Amino acid sequence: MEVTVQVSDPEVARLCEARQILNRVGDKWSIAVIYALDGATLRFTELRREVHGISQRMLTATLRTLERDGLVRRTVHPVVPPRVDYELTDLGNTLRGTVCTLMTWAVNHADDIAKARAEYDARPAS
Amino acid sequence: MEVTVQVSDPEVARLCEARQILNRVGDKWSIAVIYALDGATLRFTELRREVHGISQRMLTATLRTLERDGLVRRTVHPVVPPRVDYELTDLGNTLRGTVCTLMTWAVNHADDIAKARAEYDARPAS
Repeated sequence: MEVTVQVSDPEVARLCEARQILNRVGDKWSIAVIYALDGATLRFTELRREVHGISQRMLTATLRTLERDGLVRRTVHPVVPPRVDYELTDLGNTLRGTVCTLMTWAVNHADDIAKARAEYDARPAS
Repeated sequence: MEVTVQVSDPEVARLCEARQILNRVGDKWSIAVIYALDGATLRFTELRREVHGISQRMLTATLRTLERDGLVRRTVHPVVPPRVDYELTDLGNTLRGTVCTLMTWAVNHADDIAKARAEYDARPAS
């Protein structure tokens, strides 16, 4: 018999909401953009150079999502040619430390993960 | 003119690899499973109860990925009926703190994000 999920439970609803947020924030491009904006104000082209491998379209979409979530501030300067800057908001800054820790963890443990995967794949099928 | 990404640069290659890892680890279900296994050894059905809203199929896939990455240990006990336990490995434990911080951040800032989004959506189209 299935256990019914009580979506009316506020604690559960809150965790589900948090998971939705994490799904977006935990996206590799979001993390890379937040990481690149750590203490920096960058223009679109600068960001694209920092976030290796991101397409123009994906960077536009990622920045829009982060702006909508209140994590990134987009400032259009009324100059000719127009200049657009991106930086972390106060809310974005509260996430920065954790994102950097996560990024550092991934860099430091990439070899461990590659090793674990090779071992897993070498196991006889059971 | 496009800037060519120098994939031969070991620093860039390492960051790209880290991003691939984060993309999996940052997945909402992975985070929820790691969060549920924080200090606990759980059976499949227990995990499914802890991770509200996850389907049996998705939990199986998430556990397999986490096991392959060396973050979760799956132990089959030779009893009748068979018992299968899941727990974090030492490597999984190094990620636990950051994942819990991220989850707590998401829970604590869900309202800020909802507010930011409502404001963004209410803006006149420019």
